[in-house]
Parts: sequence; C-alpha cells; structure tokens
Amino acid sequence: MMSRYDIAIIGTGPGGLEAAITAKLRNKDIILFGTKELSPKITKAVEIRNYLGLPSISGDGLAKAYTDHLEAMDIKINEARISAVYAMGDYFALQASGEMYEAKTIIISTGVVAGRPFPGEDENLGSGVSYCATCDAALYKGKEAVVIGYSKSKEEDALFLAENADKVTYVALYKDVSELADNIEVITGNVPKEIIREGDKMTLVTNKDRFTADGIFILRDVLSAEKLVPGLLMEDGHIAVGRDMSTNIEGVFACGDVTGKPYQYIKAAGEGNVAALSAISYLTVKR
Amino acid sequence: MMSRYDIAIIGTGPGGLEAAITAKLRNKDIILFGTKELSPKITKAVEIRNYLGLPSISGDGLAKAYTDHLEAMDIKINEARISAVYAMGDYFALQASGEMYEAKTIIISTGVVAGRPFPGEDENLGSGVSYCATCDAALYKGKEAVVIGYSKSKEEDALFLAENADKVTYVALYKDVSELADNIEVITGNVPKEIIREGDKMTLVTNKDRFTADGIFILRDVLSAEKLVPGLLMEDGHIAVGRDMSTNIEGVFACGDVTGKPYQYIKAAGEGNVAALSAISYLTVKR
Repeated sequence: MMSRYDIAIIGTGPGGLEAAITAKLRNKDIILFGTKELSPKITKAVEIRNYLGLPSISGDGLAKAYTDHLEAMDIKINEARISAVYAMGDYFALQASGEMYEAKTIIISTGVVAGRPFPGEDENLGSGVSYCATCDAALYKGKEAVVIGYSKSKEEDALFLAENADKVTYVALYKDVSELADNIEVITGNVPKEIIREGDKMTLVTNKDRFTADGIFILRDVLSAEKLVPGLLMEDGHIAVGRDMSTNIEGVFACGDVTGKPYQYIKAAGEGNVAALSAISYLTVKR
Repeated sequence: MMSRYDIAIIGTGPGGLEAAITAKLRNKDIILFGTKELSPKITKAVEIRNYLGLPSISGDGLAKAYTDHLEAMDIKINEARISAVYAMGDYFALQASGEMYEAKTIIISTGVVAGRPFPGEDENLGSGVSYCATCDAALYKGKEAVVIGYSKSKEEDALFLAENADKVTYVALYKDVSELADNIEVITGNVPKEIIREGDKMTLVTNKDRFTADGIFILRDVLSAEKLVPGLLMEDGHIAVGRDMSTNIEGVFACGDVTGKPYQYIKAAGEGNVAALSAISYLTVKR
C-alpha cells in the first residue's frame, strides 16, 4: 500500500527547507521534493549579508549550512519531479515521472518562474505542448518530439522520451550538453520564441530556425504554481496567501518567493515555518 | 538640531534585529532601540532546532550569532526606553526617558506582553497609574509612589524616581534585588493582583499586602503596542498587519511576535526583513 504522508513539501529553497525541519521537529511524516543542489538562487549568490545570525555568508556557504541542518535532522530530499497535484477529497495525489505520491497536506515552495509562457504555449497545453516527458513518453511511439531543456537534469527526460519516440530534437538552453542517444538531435544556441500549431503538427520557432514535430515538451526548472496545482488562486503572478500561508485550497499552503516579493532568503524561511505550523494545525483540526 | 532618522526600530528580538540589518544594508539612517542583552526569549531558550542554517543552537548561541551580526555591520543598540510614539504629520516623535527622538518611519518589534493588564490599570492610566518613572518623576516631589519592577533594569528608574519622591515602595517581581536608596522600601515575594483608587490615593493589592501611595508605576519589560503607539489597530491582542507588515498607520510597520502567532524566531526574522523593505519603499515613494 502507498504510504500517505502528513505533509508533502515541494521545493528546496529556504521556504521548503524550513517547512521541512519545522514539520519534522513536530514529528510529522513528511516528504520533501526538490533537488539536492537546493535552489540555484542560493548557490549562485555571491554574498548574503542580511540572513540574521549568519553574517556575510556566501551562497555556497548558506547551501552548506542548510544541507548540514537537513542532515542533522535526518531529512532526505526526494528528487522526483512533481508535475501535478490533484485534490482527491481528503488527501492529495502528487504526480511525478512515472510515480504517484499521496499526502494529507501540501506546502508549495517552488520559487518564481523567470519569464512568461511562450506565445502558443498555454493554448496548446495538453494537446501538442507538455511539461512532462516521462509522463507522456508512451504516447510518442513512432512519433517525433521537440524538447526544450532548461538545464542538464532534463537530458534524462529526453533520453527516456527517445526510447519511445522515433526522433527527438533537443533544444538545449544551457552549455555543455552531454552526448545523448543516436535518435536525439541536439540543438544549441537557439532562443525559443513561439509555438505554432499547424494541423496536427507543432512547430517551435526560435531566433534562428523552425523545428516541427508531433509535440513539444517544455522542461523548465520550475513549474508555475497554477499549472502545478489546478484551481490555485493567483494574484499578480504569485500564489495568493493569508498571513497563515494558507491558499484558497484547503490543505494547501505556500511559502517563499512563490507567494510574492520581497524575494529574500530569510523571508522565505520565516514563511516556511508558518506554513508548516499552519499545515500541522490543519492536520490536528481535521483529525 | 535633532537628527531625524529614516527608520526607528523598537525592539531587539529577531524581528527588530533583522529589520535593522536589512535597512542598514540599504544605507538607511536607522536607530535601534532595545536592550543589549537582546530579548530574554532568545537567551533563555535551551535549544533552538528550527532556525534554518543554524542547526541545534542554544539561546545564548543564537544571541551571540545575532550580536556578531550587528557588530559586523556596525549597528549599535540604543538602550533608551521608548514610552510613546506620536505621529507628527510627516514624521514621528519617539518619547524616551527625558529625551525625544525623531524618525520618518517606525518599525515595532516589541514582542508580546505576557498576561493581561491588572484590574484598575487601564482605567487609571495617566492619572494615578504610569508606565514611565523617569518621565513623571518631577511630578512626585514630596510625594510617595509604588513601583512594580518586572526586571533588574527597572531599579535604575526606581532610583531616579526616589531622587524626587519622598518614599518609593519597590515591588520587585524578580530575584536578587540590589541595595537601593534609603527611601526605597524593597518588597519581594508579592504578586500584584489589582489596582484601586481611593480618593486621590492609589492602592496596589497583592496576594499578601496592600501598598498605598500617590501613584503606581508599572515597569514591564514590554509595553503593549497599543499603548506605545496611540491609534494603532489591534486584532486579538496583536498589531493588525498586512502581508507587507504595514499597520493601519501610514509609515508604521511591525514584525515579530507582536504581529501574531506563531511565536518563532525565524518567522520574526523573516517579517523583520519584509518590514524594513516596506519601510524603505514607503520612504522612496514619499520622497
């Protein structure tokens, strides 16, 4: 039987991490989804001077302090990428690549998505445009796909897709792409501009070229919150939350940059603490 | 001429300290009021395990980390006790013992007051009951006063009052009271219960005795926010704030326990960051 967690936390920025340690201290059964490298926003910071208690720390230093804290509390990071969260009545189902997870409450701390969707992206989502290569791979037997990969971790998805599809055109938006499979054509130096539907074919238009296939996969590092959780109320591009970090969906809480400015580490951490305690309070009342 | 600060921060818990470092980093001219021992809630904590980045730290350790951070940024703590903040149109006047300060914006991070006012306290405030011994000392020439001192730092106020008053009855609510002046009678082991007006005399009723004088001074460690800032909107005993930590009074922000539960260090620090950035944004718009 699938274990049902008390709290599933999505995101390993300061908000998600603080939520995890607070919930763990309260003996909740948690699962934390994210990357072991934590948020690139942390590690890439040159110097952080306003994280109270850690004067003048580098991004790497802060990431190390966070990782040490997780280790001290025996909290593991699950690297499964969650592509959707569905409310199932008295629990939530989390869809990852090929796997499902269940949790009684959800804390979203996925950060902010840089940039807007491409023209043609939203309109064709679910029919021609997909965010999850491993979820939809089976549908591509004997077909062709274009994949936009935002970071190296997306190569694995492209490879899995290529096991099913005849051909994959992999538009890499980063440097140092690895050798991939024979049926994967790697494109670099292209900037995606637009997605166009032409009959039952989809075309990705870049600043240099056009790539046509049966479908287009957009593999960003961060999925926008409203796409992650259907029905989530947004406000100016952020999840609308109360002071208790509750969202419009009962049992779903949020923290960190995804809830709005200022985009600051300590603000995100503080909100993670509140989100965890609110989720615990929700679990207590519901029980 | 009195210098007018950009931001006056009242309180040296995590909220006030984080507000101070954030504002200082933005080159704002700040003044930070509080005690150099920081909040007793910090130093008295045995072990803090959910302050992300500082796994398993003692209260003293956290206080040390905070003090180091202030020193690294050359932020001083001003120990003048602020007894009232008045909105003066385009700035605020802060009343301390015998001194006034001016600031364009205010951040309140004074924590929560333990317990409720005594019966008879609110009704007689300003006529028979006072919170500021040094402010009102001059009125006590040739008179008698009862002083309720919540901590050792209040002895200084009692001494100053005794320079003017004929007699001071000092009801100490802590241990290890120092030798005070000849005209100060120190009472220990009494728990104040009620304040009663009898004609133009005031009586403090404790669990053991009754003390009658011309006036009663209640010297708590923390002044309730609504008494500190007249007109401040409260909600369930806390300052009502928005997600940007603004209060109902333009230019006044708040952070930490004083804004509501959960009473947690990292939550308070996160709010301090937001309060400072909101104050800065307010200063920018106003300019």
